[in-house]
Amino acid sequence: MEKAQQGSGRFQALNPDFAARVEASFARQRVMALLGATIDHIEAGACHIRLPFKEDLCQQHGFFHGGIIGTIADSAGGYAGFSLMPEDASVLTVEYKLNLLAPADGDCLIARGCVIRPGRTLVITRADVSVRKQGRETLCATLLQTLMTMHGHKDEG
Amino acid sequence: MEKAQQGSGRFQALNPDFAARVEASFARQRVMALLGATIDHIEAGACHIRLPFKEDLCQQHGFFHGGIIGTIADSAGGYAGFSLMPEDASVLTVEYKLNLLAPADGDCLIARGCVIRPGRTLVITRADVSVRKQGRETLCATLLQTLMTMHGHKDEG
Amino acid sequence: MEKAQQGSGRFQALNPDFAARVEASFARQRVMALLGATIDHIEAGACHIRLPFKEDLCQQHGFFHGGIIGTIADSAGGYAGFSLMPEDASVLTVEYKLNLLAPADGDCLIARGCVIRPGRTLVITRADVSVRKQGRETLCATLLQTLMTMHGHKDEG
Amino acid sequence: MEKAQQGSGRFQALNPDFAARVEASFARQRVMALLGATIDHIEAGACHIRLPFKEDLCQQHGFFHGGIIGTIADSAGGYAGFSLMPEDASVLTVEYKLNLLAPADGDCLIARGCVIRPGRTLVITRADVSVRKQGRETLCATLLQTLMTMHGHKDEG
Repeated sequence: MEKAQQGSGRFQALNPDFAARVEASFARQRVMALLGATIDHIEAGACHIRLPFKEDLCQQHGFFHGGIIGTIADSAGGYAGFSLMPEDASVLTVEYKLNLLAPADGDCLIARGCVIRPGRTLVITRADVSVRKQGRETLCATLLQTLMTMHGHKDEG
Repeated sequence: MEKAQQGSGRFQALNPDFAARVEASFARQRVMALLGATIDHIEAGACHIRLPFKEDLCQQHGFFHGGIIGTIADSAGGYAGFSLMPEDASVLTVEYKLNLLAPADGDCLIARGCVIRPGRTLVITRADVSVRKQGRETLCATLLQTLMTMHGHKDEG
Repeated sequence: MEKAQQGSGRFQALNPDFAARVEASFARQRVMALLGATIDHIEAGACHIRLPFKEDLCQQHGFFHGGIIGTIADSAGGYAGFSLMPEDASVLTVEYKLNLLAPADGDCLIARGCVIRPGRTLVITRADVSVRKQGRETLCATLLQTLMTMHGHKDEG
Repeated sequence: MEKAQQGSGRFQALNPDFAARVEASFARQRVMALLGATIDHIEAGACHIRLPFKEDLCQQHGFFHGGIIGTIADSAGGYAGFSLMPEDASVLTVEYKLNLLAPADGDCLIARGCVIRPGRTLVITRADVSVRKQGRETLCATLLQTLMTMHGHKDEG
């Protein structure tokens, strides 16, 4: 995983431990292990998730299922938002919209989530998902998402 | 699975074998087996998918992950649409939007997809997802989806 | 306008004056007068808005513009939600998604908004928009919307 | 209006007259004149629309109505897509999702639409909407949209 770089981007995290908190929360998302997804990058306001291909993730034509693309995009956007939340808060997805742009035909998916608008209660994010095939990346989906900050509900096991 | 009843509802299928085609296509969606999802009901213009709880499907708070809710809702809407398509066509999800309405805390999810508007090229569907806990159902998500009919691209293994 | 009937439906309004509050707020939405839209029906958790055709509302093919369809659907959903909010609160649209289902070719649009999920902070609504032509109604659009209750921000002039 | 610059960006227009076609189609969108919207910029794959403030465009708190923001964003995305379509085609909005990010409080809105994915039949676009107040721009909304190319249906009066 690339090293988290607080403040390298547009946003400043409220909590200096944001990267460790994101990783700990991600580790509790049991479905990520079922799929085989891992965190590729965290910074304040951004999170990238990687998912290698396996046949178990496919729809009927042998490509990554659109719902699975949505699942890692939802988590990438969600953790992008969570990285900016205070220590006593957890994150909830309110809604998301996913447009599928090209067949997700390749060796690996990478979902790159980032915060568009960090509000106190609601946080709006975007995630672009690319599929990598023989070293070449193609944008295959984009997600627009609304998150809610659950103040006073610490995210813990 | 409940018996398919062609013409029992608002829609008439173009293909009398629609239920068998939906089941065969669903069986090729390898991700459904990974998750443990099964078809619960098919009719012309509608498809229900059921997903029993397991810890491997959870997000960080121990409930079904929003992306997994989206995955079965995407397939339920997709097969609702596919049931009305001609024999030489396959189905593609163009986009979907999912609103999460309540924590998906329970023993089983049921996604009920139905067609709102069957066009020649584009088909618009909705899917409501309920979570069942101790025999009681709660609506936990709703999806609005756009599908594309791929004429001349038979859905096959 | 049909008489508001509190408690006739699924929902109970917190505020007995909900219909008068919706009408007063609607009257402050200056854009509704510009378009020519009026309230057709209010009940606890539902609001219908009517918009007669005029050429000034059209897109390039002479039908109602999709954005105008979205505008009355946004208000119909918004006031459906607002009807359930407490007296000291105002309503904010967080986001909406609109699917256009058929050409909006007719004499009049009717947007029927209703609450799907009334939360304390977030309220999820749906609105179906029909176009009326020679006495016959056709569903031409559907909207799925997230509202926020702004507690302590009374809606007033 | 800034001069159209074909090929200055990521996309190449199929039709050298794309800017004139966009302007002619926009002029037939009667609702744009009602609102007071004008085209600010056209290039292959992008279109910007400007809308000065007037009280007639407001919601109940005196800011631009969310539906009006959606209307110019829908047209900005739609004409971004239309600029890349062949001469014998017209454009149809299939669906859009709008997130409202900040109060649209200012002198002028600017909606900047651009193509994300130009397919033969479906074109996916995004539009960011900013509000300008005392010379300072704030992002107030973002739209994600699906368009359909209507081949063989020339856009004309």
